[in-house]
Amino acid sequence: MSEPMRNPAQDRALPRPPAPASIGDRVEDVGTPALLVDLDAFDQNLARMQALADTGGVALRPHAKAHKSVAIAQRQIAAGAVGICCQKLSEAYPFAAAGIASIHISNEFVGADKLAMAVELARHVDLSICVDDVRQVAAMAAAAAAGGVRITALAEVDVGQGRCGVDSPQALSRLADAIGAAPSLRFGGLQAYHGGAQHLPHWTQRRDAARHAADLAHAYVRHLDARGIACAVVTGGGSGSAEFDCESGVYTEIQPGSYLFLDGHYGASEWPGRFQPRHALFLSTTVMSTARAGVAVCDAGLKSVAVDSGLPRLWSGQGSEWLRYVAANDEHGVLQVLQEDGPALLGNKLWLVPGHCDPTANLHAQYVCCRDGYVAELWDIAARGLSR
Amino acid sequence: MSEPMRNPAQDRALPRPPAPASIGDRVEDVGTPALLVDLDAFDQNLARMQALADTGGVALRPHAKAHKSVAIAQRQIAAGAVGICCQKLSEAYPFAAAGIASIHISNEFVGADKLAMAVELARHVDLSICVDDVRQVAAMAAAAAAGGVRITALAEVDVGQGRCGVDSPQALSRLADAIGAAPSLRFGGLQAYHGGAQHLPHWTQRRDAARHAADLAHAYVRHLDARGIACAVVTGGGSGSAEFDCESGVYTEIQPGSYLFLDGHYGASEWPGRFQPRHALFLSTTVMSTARAGVAVCDAGLKSVAVDSGLPRLWSGQGSEWLRYVAANDEHGVLQVLQEDGPALLGNKLWLVPGHCDPTANLHAQYVCCRDGYVAELWDIAARGLSR
Repeated sequence: MSEPMRNPAQDRALPRPPAPASIGDRVEDVGTPALLVDLDAFDQNLARMQALADTGGVALRPHAKAHKSVAIAQRQIAAGAVGICCQKLSEAYPFAAAGIASIHISNEFVGADKLAMAVELARHVDLSICVDDVRQVAAMAAAAAAGGVRITALAEVDVGQGRCGVDSPQALSRLADAIGAAPSLRFGGLQAYHGGAQHLPHWTQRRDAARHAADLAHAYVRHLDARGIACAVVTGGGSGSAEFDCESGVYTEIQPGSYLFLDGHYGASEWPGRFQPRHALFLSTTVMSTARAGVAVCDAGLKSVAVDSGLPRLWSGQGSEWLRYVAANDEHGVLQVLQEDGPALLGNKLWLVPGHCDPTANLHAQYVCCRDGYVAELWDIAARGLSR
Repeated sequence: MSEPMRNPAQDRALPRPPAPASIGDRVEDVGTPALLVDLDAFDQNLARMQALADTGGVALRPHAKAHKSVAIAQRQIAAGAVGICCQKLSEAYPFAAAGIASIHISNEFVGADKLAMAVELARHVDLSICVDDVRQVAAMAAAAAAGGVRITALAEVDVGQGRCGVDSPQALSRLADAIGAAPSLRFGGLQAYHGGAQHLPHWTQRRDAARHAADLAHAYVRHLDARGIACAVVTGGGSGSAEFDCESGVYTEIQPGSYLFLDGHYGASEWPGRFQPRHALFLSTTVMSTARAGVAVCDAGLKSVAVDSGLPRLWSGQGSEWLRYVAANDEHGVLQVLQEDGPALLGNKLWLVPGHCDPTANLHAQYVCCRDGYVAELWDIAARGLSR
């Protein structure tokens, strides 16, 4: 401004921004935008997926890419999970440092920096990785040998996703043979993940896609078995297909992540079957401008909620009948107001259901966990931004 | 996995993930995904916008929401900027703590936590804020009085964006009078920002929209002037309209942010005029899977690059003729390969031009700044995730 202010204590050091919430705060007093977890719904989702896996005699290895939180991973393991999945090597560090003993990297990687991370992680945890190319196997074998560690390698097979993974028995055999020939590696089995199957809206569509994926995975298992190579682990599946994967007789392990939260995209799917999740993740936002008729502007935009799978929607009971989130700018959410008294909304706090939980959690430093209207826990999102 | 590994040093504490780069590294050795800044292009964009403002006799107050980096703000001020804009109060903290003396919050806010942040910031910096409702004025006036500080308030007027800001002379008068009546506030003038005008692809469209916005702002200035209220500051404008705002005779200050980087969305616009930016921000990524014919998968997805303004594209000379980024999954980028030898891509590092720089920078902890093929600087993104 033209004429500088003269305010006291301009010399005093400025602290960091205040925390959005403290344990014991009322939920309506939490600073916005804030990522809220409804602990009752969260606990129910956590227990229901573990029960589904237990009933099916399948190991549950939840995917930490969805929540990126050590506190959540520890709760998953306390409930019976055998370990966790991470999608990136750097993402695994906070979990390994917190003592999570078994981590599967459900992804391929290439490059000296990645190999160094894998070797370092393998010194601290029971580490498995995915490969879909013999060149990845050779590089990992050499790095593991030089580092004096042994790493479990799973061959990824494509079962419908059309992304990573080999798509022929011959290519799978070459991978398994290369892994088996490397003393610093150990052949762990197969990863057979079909991401597209997770997000089909109708239950029967997901069932059919999951069964097709399981049939393809089974054929690969039999192919290796005929060559005397056993698959100790067949891992894959996700929140949308878990109930089918558990009854497939093929998968030994499932990797769901979003089941804890049920984001807006998954929430739009049918859940008539043996796993019925509840919405447990919300973004609280404050209406900070009502200057224009028919429009309310809230403080949650692109930097607080991911929109790749659709805009967030108002949570029921939060004005969803007469308020619609119609545009996400960087720091603003534009709400269409379908009732008369828009200006009365100024200062109102609203709960949004994020369209996609994984990239939304990646935008925040902390989960504000609520029960009975009060803040009960604060969980750091320690792996936020760890994408290497 | 079923049978745990026995690797050495499982007891040793695990460090954080290694840094993606060190000063002096070759660019091709930087761990991916990494946000790269081409310092030659960056320096040119920085100097050209400052020269544009200087020539127009207009103050440059760059928007820190685009970069969220103290190191960049300090370079902008060293080049002649009068201070910075932030979009959120929490976002301003790292800049205030680093000694940036003048910060304008180019946004409205409501709530006790926000008022407390504004009062704390005003104790350390020359702070201005925006209002578009007399209730915001009353709350800020009371908090500033209680905190013993004086804060500059700008009345936001809507000049075409249709988001925040009053849209009548009467409403503006009520705001200015309320600010003027509060001893703890000071009426600073107007914010007249038209975000929509920034992103019109054709230069003449941007010129016409910017002139229309300036005409509306001028009418509001004259309205207050007729009532004996002077607007010391008329702030607004952005990278797309800056050259027109500078010659408008209405704006005393411009707020561009993206001009430093020129993301893919802005890069698709015409720049025939007096400001011609260059692409300076890139996301380096590694091809980590080529198992399927016609497809290459890289390690940069939704958690490394924002897709709200379109998918990233391959930088020229990086295979843009025969490679196309066609899908962003959470941690994977799917590339369509339009040439024969896809498998040869495994391990290749590619530079992507992000579609939208602001939310992309918000996903990263650091800029890896390069010159002549080597890493010359590492700049923290200190305000990443500060969205309150």
